[in-house]
Amino acid sequence: MHSPIETDAVIIGAGPVGLFQVFELGLLEIKVHVIDSLPEVGGQCIELYPDKPIYDIPAVPICTGRELVSNLLKQIEPFAPQFHLNQEVSTLEKQADGRFLIGTSLHQYFLSKTVFIAAGVGAFQPRLLALEGIDAFVDQQVFYRVKNPDQFTGKRVVICGGGDSALDWALHFVGKAASVTLIHRRDEFKAAPQSVAKMRALCTSGQMQLIIGQITGLESSDDRLTEIAVTDIDGKVQMIGLDSLLLFYGLSPKLGPIAGWGLEIDRKQIAVDTAHFQTSIPGIYAVGDINIYPGKKKLILSGFHEAALAAFSAAAYLAPEKQIQLQYTTTSPKLHKALGVSPPTFE
Amino acid sequence: MHSPIETDAVIIGAGPVGLFQVFELGLLEIKVHVIDSLPEVGGQCIELYPDKPIYDIPAVPICTGRELVSNLLKQIEPFAPQFHLNQEVSTLEKQADGRFLIGTSLHQYFLSKTVFIAAGVGAFQPRLLALEGIDAFVDQQVFYRVKNPDQFTGKRVVICGGGDSALDWALHFVGKAASVTLIHRRDEFKAAPQSVAKMRALCTSGQMQLIIGQITGLESSDDRLTEIAVTDIDGKVQMIGLDSLLLFYGLSPKLGPIAGWGLEIDRKQIAVDTAHFQTSIPGIYAVGDINIYPGKKKLILSGFHEAALAAFSAAAYLAPEKQIQLQYTTTSPKLHKALGVSPPTFE
Repeated sequence: MHSPIETDAVIIGAGPVGLFQVFELGLLEIKVHVIDSLPEVGGQCIELYPDKPIYDIPAVPICTGRELVSNLLKQIEPFAPQFHLNQEVSTLEKQADGRFLIGTSLHQYFLSKTVFIAAGVGAFQPRLLALEGIDAFVDQQVFYRVKNPDQFTGKRVVICGGGDSALDWALHFVGKAASVTLIHRRDEFKAAPQSVAKMRALCTSGQMQLIIGQITGLESSDDRLTEIAVTDIDGKVQMIGLDSLLLFYGLSPKLGPIAGWGLEIDRKQIAVDTAHFQTSIPGIYAVGDINIYPGKKKLILSGFHEAALAAFSAAAYLAPEKQIQLQYTTTSPKLHKALGVSPPTFE
Repeated sequence: MHSPIETDAVIIGAGPVGLFQVFELGLLEIKVHVIDSLPEVGGQCIELYPDKPIYDIPAVPICTGRELVSNLLKQIEPFAPQFHLNQEVSTLEKQADGRFLIGTSLHQYFLSKTVFIAAGVGAFQPRLLALEGIDAFVDQQVFYRVKNPDQFTGKRVVICGGGDSALDWALHFVGKAASVTLIHRRDEFKAAPQSVAKMRALCTSGQMQLIIGQITGLESSDDRLTEIAVTDIDGKVQMIGLDSLLLFYGLSPKLGPIAGWGLEIDRKQIAVDTAHFQTSIPGIYAVGDINIYPGKKKLILSGFHEAALAAFSAAAYLAPEKQIQLQYTTTSPKLHKALGVSPPTFE
């Protein structure tokens, strides 16, 4: 075991709410470590809709997921949070001294006085295709994410799924890939209607094809995936030759290891109170999409509010003897110092 | 009585939270009328700190009060709210049909199914100087707000107060006014320390002067205010000649007429629940600085969250038979239509 990092606060999840949690704790002079299972910060915003516009962040009429994350990173810069990416939090145990021992899949350990679970839909894992033999081709010819679109130029690409990711990438590769085949289990799509309309037009003009059915088998040769078998609703099987298979079955909404930490869970979410956003274990807070309380809406802006109140609550938990006053970033010299900005002058 | 305007929702207060309430109701296809006592939208942000930086709006690393309001106005543009400015809401009465009859100081009336009180610290009134004879000079030589700074060029300006407004304007007028005198009841200031330091330096170099004391009398001649009497802590009176008197005694934190509407009040704020942000009267919601609930912090970002949840609650109140689903601005065609934007495409 690596020697554990001792800290006042660990944030699990580097999505927008986790990032804003850094900010609110920073204003209260609480330094943090942030852990995320993904290789980069931003959570769902970066994984699911980096380039799509978001319209409901208050006072931000329009921004993409990527811009939102980039603005939040700029906002928390003064607090220099330490990120521990590419590792899932696997264990959390309360110690005799009241601190929490947190361990990750990379065997990094933390001894922290408080924990903020901002893990969104849970540790972020794409839903996998359950098909014998498929695993051997993952990251070679089979992909659950597109990291480098150019690698598919000139390839026979098969894309599975009916949501925005599947449709967007299908449309993207038309004209770039040698062929584009979209496979979906039924002729109804969760993707934006305009994308669906565009896809159907491209099918009509022969620039791509749509097959309704499910992948039920594969053929390989010389360690290469050569064909997949697609079975339609009547049981008819069709073999499709391919170079690359992109699977967009959405995210697994499982809490993962968090479910085993003894927290009160309500409908797969972590129960919190609305004054402190504290879980059933004092010192552990849950903010953003992963929590539940009466009236809860899974809005990013609600997560921001929750992070603010959780930070005040944690400050009181960490220093019960200290009187914590609400100060304003516009006027407080203390907050200006924390933010590293000059006090504003009128002119 | 003017014929009342019939509507689904009236928002009292056009500060940032009132403006965002327009947005959240707009997404749920609820049209609104917004009433404010001030002549322009923006509330405290515009009245108190239009040009000062705010650092804690999520995903907005820095913006001035003016920029915040301007961004919110841009964000709510698709919903074309109707503003009724320069008038205080004076009466609210529940009608037999369940609607609320709202009357303003300009005798404008509204019959609304729901009401959102986003009135901040209450109808926004500067604290007045209680001095016999002063009222005759208000808006001629005595001002509680600076609307046109140029009118004071070359004048002998006396400024009262110890907060940011007083100090900022005092610093502003040095070198522009014929003379600048700052009067404050004690030698301690709530203004930013840097402003105070600058003010003291300017006093030392003789470019302005500071008098510790209170205004206790005035002299006038030919309907013009010519001098004020300032009494210090030892009772010594000093007469100061002047052309203009700027009074910055802060805001009156009174609820005003709202206190008489039968709402449950807790420490001068309106009690709400944290699931719906509804007051003790169904159909009336309170959001932003004017409300109170366990854990409440007077943060703009909390008001934004409250506005979102209040909107969902009101939508259910207005149409109990309708199932209201949370949709996302990134993906929902219905919300895109409401926002007047094209569905996003990938490329």
